[in-house]
Amino acid sequence: MAKELKGRAIHLKSRPQGEPTAANFELVETAVPEPAEGQILVCNLFMSVDPYMRGRMNDVKSYVPPFQVGQPLDGGVVGQVVHSKALGYEEGDFVTGMGGWREYHVAPANQYMKVDPGVGSLSAYLGVLGMPGMTAYVGLLDLGKPQAGETVFVSGAAGAVGGLVGQIAKLKGCRVVGSAGSAEKVKHLREELGFDDAFNYKDGPVAQTLERTCPGGIDVYFDNVGGEHLEASIGKMNNYGRIVLCGAISQYNATAPAPGPRNLMLAVGRRLTLQGFIISDERHMERRPDFLRDVGGWLREKKVKEVETVVEGLDKAPEAFIGLLRGHNTGKMVVKLASPV
Amino acid sequence: MAKELKGRAIHLKSRPQGEPTAANFELVETAVPEPAEGQILVCNLFMSVDPYMRGRMNDVKSYVPPFQVGQPLDGGVVGQVVHSKALGYEEGDFVTGMGGWREYHVAPANQYMKVDPGVGSLSAYLGVLGMPGMTAYVGLLDLGKPQAGETVFVSGAAGAVGGLVGQIAKLKGCRVVGSAGSAEKVKHLREELGFDDAFNYKDGPVAQTLERTCPGGIDVYFDNVGGEHLEASIGKMNNYGRIVLCGAISQYNATAPAPGPRNLMLAVGRRLTLQGFIISDERHMERRPDFLRDVGGWLREKKVKEVETVVEGLDKAPEAFIGLLRGHNTGKMVVKLASPV
Repeated sequence: MAKELKGRAIHLKSRPQGEPTAANFELVETAVPEPAEGQILVCNLFMSVDPYMRGRMNDVKSYVPPFQVGQPLDGGVVGQVVHSKALGYEEGDFVTGMGGWREYHVAPANQYMKVDPGVGSLSAYLGVLGMPGMTAYVGLLDLGKPQAGETVFVSGAAGAVGGLVGQIAKLKGCRVVGSAGSAEKVKHLREELGFDDAFNYKDGPVAQTLERTCPGGIDVYFDNVGGEHLEASIGKMNNYGRIVLCGAISQYNATAPAPGPRNLMLAVGRRLTLQGFIISDERHMERRPDFLRDVGGWLREKKVKEVETVVEGLDKAPEAFIGLLRGHNTGKMVVKLASPV
Repeated sequence: MAKELKGRAIHLKSRPQGEPTAANFELVETAVPEPAEGQILVCNLFMSVDPYMRGRMNDVKSYVPPFQVGQPLDGGVVGQVVHSKALGYEEGDFVTGMGGWREYHVAPANQYMKVDPGVGSLSAYLGVLGMPGMTAYVGLLDLGKPQAGETVFVSGAAGAVGGLVGQIAKLKGCRVVGSAGSAEKVKHLREELGFDDAFNYKDGPVAQTLERTCPGGIDVYFDNVGGEHLEASIGKMNNYGRIVLCGAISQYNATAPAPGPRNLMLAVGRRLTLQGFIISDERHMERRPDFLRDVGGWLREKKVKEVETVVEGLDKAPEAFIGLLRGHNTGKMVVKLASPV
């Protein structure tokens, strides 16, 4: 560490209005400090781009503070320890934590978790074994509470969360239907992920398609997209149905409020529960060991598939993020920054 | 019972389009049969008109079957046994059950419950001690789960359900805010029912009024009206807030779907739960003893007030029902049909 280390990072240059463009991002090179006592220097191998980051680009108070203009963006990463001044962390260890959108990051070691490279791929810790996986696991099982024989419908089903929701629901004995935005994704859901049925929501009104694909109604709707999907699903929910409100990717770039579901009051007569959640909440952390045991086990037994779309190079991260919001990914969208040593 | 008994009943003459009118109802006199083995003949003393009945006037499948044109309407009553052929039921007993919108009713005794005339007034069994009371109790406590110090907002607060929701929430140590549709009702909520604050929703946008009346946000919103109230409340909910979807009286006469809440997706970041329920569900029946003990106790100790608007005479029942949907009642709207003997 004699020579000064330099590293590149993506800064938020300006706040997007509507859909983000390349002009909202800036690639900046800065000196990487040496780790202080208790800190580690991490070389980032894979960084995550996630839909929730769009919300942080607005200057709006939410469950995470907004990104600051002129500062690096942030997000999940898997990296390798280059230099450690923390007990229990060695050079070469694989870790996951925040500190993405840059090549190197220095932070207190206790902000990272060590990961076992033997369970799945390293990047799986950003996907099925990471935040999206935990979101699918807790959202479906703890909030959706699917019972064998029930029908589970998931939107954004070819995404990182949706794909695992569907696979877990199948393992729990449910009939699983998914929606996605292209014929290729629909094929992927049916042929690769084992969905019972799947459809391209661009082919026609979702409400009509649900009549055909969910003839017995929906017991659990896992909502990743909001908008038309949510209204159509409410209309097909069975009594005592559960709607897991996970995200609303159809609305993240919206510059004006989208219409709400006109049929929400069906929730009274049908005794529906709609529940929003944020996976990073303390209350969900106790489920992490169960999640790693179950999903890790399913991965090893090939009962669950890891699916990802990999973009190479930090300079391509803005493009990856913009593409994610346009649905260019199948499975988890990750950016590969470096190879492990 | 030698002479044939005749009784009048209100039939549904035609299905209302939009707001019901007197022309949708017909007063008919028919012979009252003698009770068979296991049955009782009940003289109805008070009958209930309730908002949910509007839904039953449409030819739509819901959690209760629709009323039939040319047939008597139905609903909750408190009556007195005139003639019993059922073990355990004596002439003069007070009972409550279905069989309203008529002067006399003959039915199996096990469809009635005997009521104790010493707890509150007889008509209270249609209000605070009846279905609306149970709705308030279960909806607020089991679904809303209010904690001392939290803010509870209830719409339709001067109605049969809303008024008790507010009073129970006060007893649980909450700050209670209510909305209603007239200055007199607002005064009633503040001065008679002990609400911390109350407002006339006709005075201005609900969202603006909630800024003023719920400066610390809302933890539990008990929704009786839907529409603008629901959207405004979602906008003021605190993290982990609960929205109890009890009814949507603002929409019962609607002939086209009303706009849904445009901000429903705030439910994700704020981790909101919205839950619809129907009090007549088997799953809520186990709470009936707790309800009668608690609310009965509070009534006797004068901690809860019985509030009702009484209309006299079966021929006035349609008018009472139409008035209910227009908000002409304070507290429970009941129709007095006869005096006890």
